[in-house]
Amino acid sequence: MMLIPTDAFADEGMWLFTNPPKKWLKEHYDFEPSEAWLKNLQRSAVRFNSGGSGAFVSPEGLVITNHHVGADALQKLSSPDRDLVAKGFHAKTRDEEIKCVDLELNVLMSTEDVTARVNAAVKKDMSQADAEKARRAVTNTIEKESLDKTKLRSDVITLYHGGEYHLYRYKKYTDVRLVFAPEQDIAFFGGDPDNFEYPRYDLDICFFHVYEDGKPAKVEHYLPWSKSGASENELVFVVGNPGHTDRLDTVRHLEFLRDRNYPSSLRTIFRREVLLTAYSQRSLENARRAKDELFGIQNTRKARLAALAGLQDPAIMDRKSKDEKTLRDSLLKDSTLKGDAKAWDDVSTAIDEWNRIYTDWALLENGTAFNSELFSIARQLVRIADEDAKDNADRLREYRESNRESLEQQLFSEAPVYDDLEVAKLADSLSMFMEQAGADNQWVRKTLRGHSPQARADELVRGTKLKDVAYRKEIAKAGRSAIEKSDDPMIQLALLVDPPSREVRKTYEEKVDEPLKQAYAKIANARFAIEGTSTYPDATFSLRLAFGQVKGYMQDGKKIPPWTTIGGAFKHSDLHGAKPPFVLPDSWLQPPKPLDQNTPFNFVCTADIIGGNSGSPVINKAGQYVGIIFDGNIQSLVLNFTYTDAQARAVSVHSSAILEALRNVYGAVELADEIERGRAK
Amino acid sequence: MMLIPTDAFADEGMWLFTNPPKKWLKEHYDFEPSEAWLKNLQRSAVRFNSGGSGAFVSPEGLVITNHHVGADALQKLSSPDRDLVAKGFHAKTRDEEIKCVDLELNVLMSTEDVTARVNAAVKKDMSQADAEKARRAVTNTIEKESLDKTKLRSDVITLYHGGEYHLYRYKKYTDVRLVFAPEQDIAFFGGDPDNFEYPRYDLDICFFHVYEDGKPAKVEHYLPWSKSGASENELVFVVGNPGHTDRLDTVRHLEFLRDRNYPSSLRTIFRREVLLTAYSQRSLENARRAKDELFGIQNTRKARLAALAGLQDPAIMDRKSKDEKTLRDSLLKDSTLKGDAKAWDDVSTAIDEWNRIYTDWALLENGTAFNSELFSIARQLVRIADEDAKDNADRLREYRESNRESLEQQLFSEAPVYDDLEVAKLADSLSMFMEQAGADNQWVRKTLRGHSPQARADELVRGTKLKDVAYRKEIAKAGRSAIEKSDDPMIQLALLVDPPSREVRKTYEEKVDEPLKQAYAKIANARFAIEGTSTYPDATFSLRLAFGQVKGYMQDGKKIPPWTTIGGAFKHSDLHGAKPPFVLPDSWLQPPKPLDQNTPFNFVCTADIIGGNSGSPVINKAGQYVGIIFDGNIQSLVLNFTYTDAQARAVSVHSSAILEALRNVYGAVELADEIERGRAK
Repeated sequence: MMLIPTDAFADEGMWLFTNPPKKWLKEHYDFEPSEAWLKNLQRSAVRFNSGGSGAFVSPEGLVITNHHVGADALQKLSSPDRDLVAKGFHAKTRDEEIKCVDLELNVLMSTEDVTARVNAAVKKDMSQADAEKARRAVTNTIEKESLDKTKLRSDVITLYHGGEYHLYRYKKYTDVRLVFAPEQDIAFFGGDPDNFEYPRYDLDICFFHVYEDGKPAKVEHYLPWSKSGASENELVFVVGNPGHTDRLDTVRHLEFLRDRNYPSSLRTIFRREVLLTAYSQRSLENARRAKDELFGIQNTRKARLAALAGLQDPAIMDRKSKDEKTLRDSLLKDSTLKGDAKAWDDVSTAIDEWNRIYTDWALLENGTAFNSELFSIARQLVRIADEDAKDNADRLREYRESNRESLEQQLFSEAPVYDDLEVAKLADSLSMFMEQAGADNQWVRKTLRGHSPQARADELVRGTKLKDVAYRKEIAKAGRSAIEKSDDPMIQLALLVDPPSREVRKTYEEKVDEPLKQAYAKIANARFAIEGTSTYPDATFSLRLAFGQVKGYMQDGKKIPPWTTIGGAFKHSDLHGAKPPFVLPDSWLQPPKPLDQNTPFNFVCTADIIGGNSGSPVINKAGQYVGIIFDGNIQSLVLNFTYTDAQARAVSVHSSAILEALRNVYGAVELADEIERGRAK
Repeated sequence: MMLIPTDAFADEGMWLFTNPPKKWLKEHYDFEPSEAWLKNLQRSAVRFNSGGSGAFVSPEGLVITNHHVGADALQKLSSPDRDLVAKGFHAKTRDEEIKCVDLELNVLMSTEDVTARVNAAVKKDMSQADAEKARRAVTNTIEKESLDKTKLRSDVITLYHGGEYHLYRYKKYTDVRLVFAPEQDIAFFGGDPDNFEYPRYDLDICFFHVYEDGKPAKVEHYLPWSKSGASENELVFVVGNPGHTDRLDTVRHLEFLRDRNYPSSLRTIFRREVLLTAYSQRSLENARRAKDELFGIQNTRKARLAALAGLQDPAIMDRKSKDEKTLRDSLLKDSTLKGDAKAWDDVSTAIDEWNRIYTDWALLENGTAFNSELFSIARQLVRIADEDAKDNADRLREYRESNRESLEQQLFSEAPVYDDLEVAKLADSLSMFMEQAGADNQWVRKTLRGHSPQARADELVRGTKLKDVAYRKEIAKAGRSAIEKSDDPMIQLALLVDPPSREVRKTYEEKVDEPLKQAYAKIANARFAIEGTSTYPDATFSLRLAFGQVKGYMQDGKKIPPWTTIGGAFKHSDLHGAKPPFVLPDSWLQPPKPLDQNTPFNFVCTADIIGGNSGSPVINKAGQYVGIIFDGNIQSLVLNFTYTDAQARAVSVHSSAILEALRNVYGAVELADEIERGRAK
């Protein structure tokens, strides 16, 4: 695997809309994005709060995303008799659409740099604890003020790990209705073996309509569908919400990811994957219940393993060390900046502290000891009772007033909860708790109360009333004393472990997160001073603009072409004996109308993406929709740490394949027409 | 789960043939086994060196074992065009039988108590290092003398963790030919979900013939087939080789298993299961290549998890603590024994030392850092060269002269090795090596030589010539200087890591294993003095006699009957939508002759078994063959630590189902006739 880019810049970057790479685009592609072009992209882009991206593709509020992004909603709408994830869905009329149980979509309306105000609240001589408190207070307050003023969802986003703070205002859609999803067999054709691989043949799409006040919403901004998609070497853009990258991390920070964070989370992932796979194999209904969660775990496992392989590659770490040394040496030569060189040591100190508390932090506050929906609901109810008693400025971030609506959207969701799956997950995680914290740990003992993990999980899940949403609402309303008096075993457990959990969170926020923000702010400023401000921050699940060319690559001496075709899917299935996960659905094997085998199906481009970009629109210079990102190849997973276009590619479904399938496989004429009406404009 | 036995003794015990539970059998079952009865059982029992048990069931050398015990041999005889594991095999004539590539069967011919001689070699004032050396020397010597004298395979077995040493002499069969195996779909019907569960419907059988001097062997001892099997509550016996139990472990030792050993090995198992499952899903050929290994890993995972659940159950550990306290208190009251009470502390000290070296010991000497057949071959070649230069008495145990033939049977096996599977396994384990030993560990750095784990694994596997058996033989013959001059990358790696690996092994043997033997010898003697000698040692993969009754049990308020029927298999398949792993093979769906649906298929009994007992014959008082052990239910997995007959059951295939399937499904008339000829005797 060649991971060193030949050109360190190339088509790199997940750019802020407030600072797009205009100069590079002009110089290398002779393209100058207009403000109107940028604005239409920004307002057409949709963030799926469940994790993912999407876009409006009609003025009638039609949203397209990936099947695997929509799968969370599909799973929550499914039942033993109606497996929407596996079998797909097609509403031929508005009346047939199904309202999602807890889906929230966000459209970014405006942004504002609030760095000065945030930093002004943190005084120079403050202790880390006071600094953390002050920063949290000003952030909660800015958001509350903005919400009151604009009625828009208002989030302060930390950029450059603390170098800047921006206030993002989103229009929220919470009435979202399912329009269309294909079968999982074609949406995720090739399954886990083909995941993060290329060539691919996946129709990874899903359509929703947004509603306001119970009526179909009209949207001013959307992306008109391209007639033919993009051609080889054509410049394309990707607009979406990349979730998390670690490109600006110091070497010590990366080593911590390599030696502790990644291995530790992979261990949890491996055991959960084994648990859910074994659970799923017991019956078809079990498989249905665990489907979306198992997909998510396998997806994360493959991504993490490939990213860890990058961290374990000496070539990459050596280059990171060299770059870091160059920057620090430059700083030391500059009398006004050289004091900031200490920032790298401050990062190391914070990382050491993180490492020290890591086990407790992961088990208690991240909750790997209590892998259960019901526990997570119980914990939120316990904390709401505590946090509501405080001033908004002092609350834990997720309980700030400006976030309350979104929090309740999840907490009071009617999504089904399955006792047997909950018991299996909780028993396994309690066993892990005993293993990692030690059998004699006081919290382990108090949690298990003399029972085995299995017996205790059974008692907790069977005994709790939290499966009833009305009961959750009642408890949420009743406040702290009701919590304390509750005889619900899951609430009692959440109450029990909240003090040590809050304690480790406090340590994390004061001794890890706040010092990291302060240190990285210095590093960011140093970088701006030395390398210029024409740069982009690490990904934070907020809106970014990436760009690149439609382009194949070489692998094991073979040329991998930029496109696949619909005909290729049939060949690929044959090659694998047409056995799962290489089975094409009946609708494809016997389509009502003949499929054009030469239709481009999937394609790759060099745009800079990462997890969270799933469902992102791919756009041409005319601002037209040419495809939808659904994956990166395995070589792209190192993009978490460093950009390369040697082999790393973003993988998309081609816009032509989507229309071809809608019309000829699914007879979704009205949907195709709606899309094409938008194009006619 | 009720794990506390109502009667602490009941049908407990994995008894030595030299000390069978005669008194108990007489008192409770009014049965007195004769010497001839015992001898026929002992000589009819067959140990599969690949791990498992079996028995002769005809005077013509017909051996029956489980499909999952034979699977190692089946896998090694398979190729892309001939998947014997999945599709089964049937030799209608002697000529059609296939010779196994490296299978060795053992029949126990005689035993001799050599405790006095072993202990006499270890002088009272010896250091632990000298004691270990002396014990190893006398053991190697006893075996060599016995081999020279008797030409029989001669192994000194450690019993009661060091309380006694017995010399076991085995007749070896190395020309073993495959006769019959059913399809895996019926042998392992229900797959991983049904593994360690009951009720079951599995035809987990496999037949071989043994040969001597290229001709069919005649055997004097075998088990005649019963006409009708065993009835409810009937007394039955199980003769086989239980692999390992920890019933005599001290509480500190059990805590170490609970807190370190089991969690650590489970972590390795989880990641290997995920790796092999992902590998297998890529293609049908991949699935075939990894099949037997993946089965083994899943089997171990399920067994370990259930056993760990036992260790994590406070009820079990509390009882162990109480028993231990009772014994120690009794010792302290006895002036001649009270000095031995210190033995528990000595165990703890040894366990602390084991804990200290655990990571290095597992990675380097147990080889979890180098999960590769080719590496393991390379290491053996490197060590043979070193060990051959020493006196037999001083050699590492596995390189003693008396073991050479068995070692070479494996080392020079023509079993296929697959490059891609080797690379996948080695890359993953090298990554784990870096993770657990640290990226800066000198042996990690020297192993990887600046490459990523993936790149280095690729280089090692593609570059080595050890896939060629002729080359292995050449290297084994050429000795140390040839090893040192070799440019084979895998041999170079094995050479590189041998010094640190031997060092940690030396520490383990001197500071863990030897002190444990000495301490447990004291504990065993104390136990004999206080509880009497009518007891049995922990399992050691050597021949044992267990007994029990055919008996159902209660679970979740429901009565689980002792038998299932052949008809039940069809219902069980229907209940699971006839999807894998609940698919019956075509041969069962359309049998050439009608199947009697009421034939008993599987049954349970209370006999005391554990892993290694797979394939053990179940015998009635008349010494007739009534079934074959192939599993224990999930409640039985706690038998590793403590016996219970509340719900724990051994699961067997019924003798009647075997004949029914052979005649009516498989048309294996000659095989059924051979079995029934034996019965006629």
